[in-house]
Amino acid sequence: MTHRIEVPESLSDLLHGPNTAVLTTVGADGLPQSTAVWYLVGDDGVLRSSITTDRQKYRNLVRHPMATLFILDPTNPYRTIEIRSNVELTPDPEKAMVHQFADKYGMPVETLLQAGGDRVVATFDPVKVNANG
Amino acid sequence: MTHRIEVPESLSDLLHGPNTAVLTTVGADGLPQSTAVWYLVGDDGVLRSSITTDRQKYRNLVRHPMATLFILDPTNPYRTIEIRSNVELTPDPEKAMVHQFADKYGMPVETLLQAGGDRVVATFDPVKVNANG
Repeated sequence: MTHRIEVPESLSDLLHGPNTAVLTTVGADGLPQSTAVWYLVGDDGVLRSSITTDRQKYRNLVRHPMATLFILDPTNPYRTIEIRSNVELTPDPEKAMVHQFADKYGMPVETLLQAGGDRVVATFDPVKVNANG
Repeated sequence: MTHRIEVPESLSDLLHGPNTAVLTTVGADGLPQSTAVWYLVGDDGVLRSSITTDRQKYRNLVRHPMATLFILDPTNPYRTIEIRSNVELTPDPEKAMVHQFADKYGMPVETLLQAGGDRVVATFDPVKVNANG
């Protein structure tokens, strides 16, 4: 069972707002790989992101299904949420998550789909959450 | 020899400005650990940060001396710098780096030293740099 992501009420805006997060996976060489990603907390309270299968982070997660999502308030660096998680990848042939992102981030779906490639949903099962601020 | 950090001129402001970066190490459990950190590119072009020895990231780096520093433009999430590095830790008994941070970030040294604890300098020898924007 995937656990809900829980943060203090004071950080609810940071968790649920249209922020860019930093997703870090671990490469076969042992080096962390960090990229800017969008993410979504569903009505079920579960954190998810969307990844194309031609990216290194996808290959990293297939090999080592753990990742950390870090959200830094762009206006206040003392407000942060770190979510260390086990990650499950599931196919998203309809690219449903991209449509959800378009809604959340106020972007045209067409722009988001320019990246091309097959997509999977990365579902985060938190192991440890550190919330500051 | 530690290598200089090099990014395109278009991202020089992001690399050298008083930004907050996300530093990710890898824990013994395999989970990445991310925290918000300050950093400094010295006159020698080498990237460094400062870590107190009572933190998990210090213990992670002693065990697994690799880390990634990720800088995300707070005003434009399409401008990013990812620096995957080997990391060398050296004692900083005078806390010299904290004084350099105070200059760069415009903060009183006293405020920065409230964190307490012994400090080490983390010196980054880049393995791979990905610059976008």
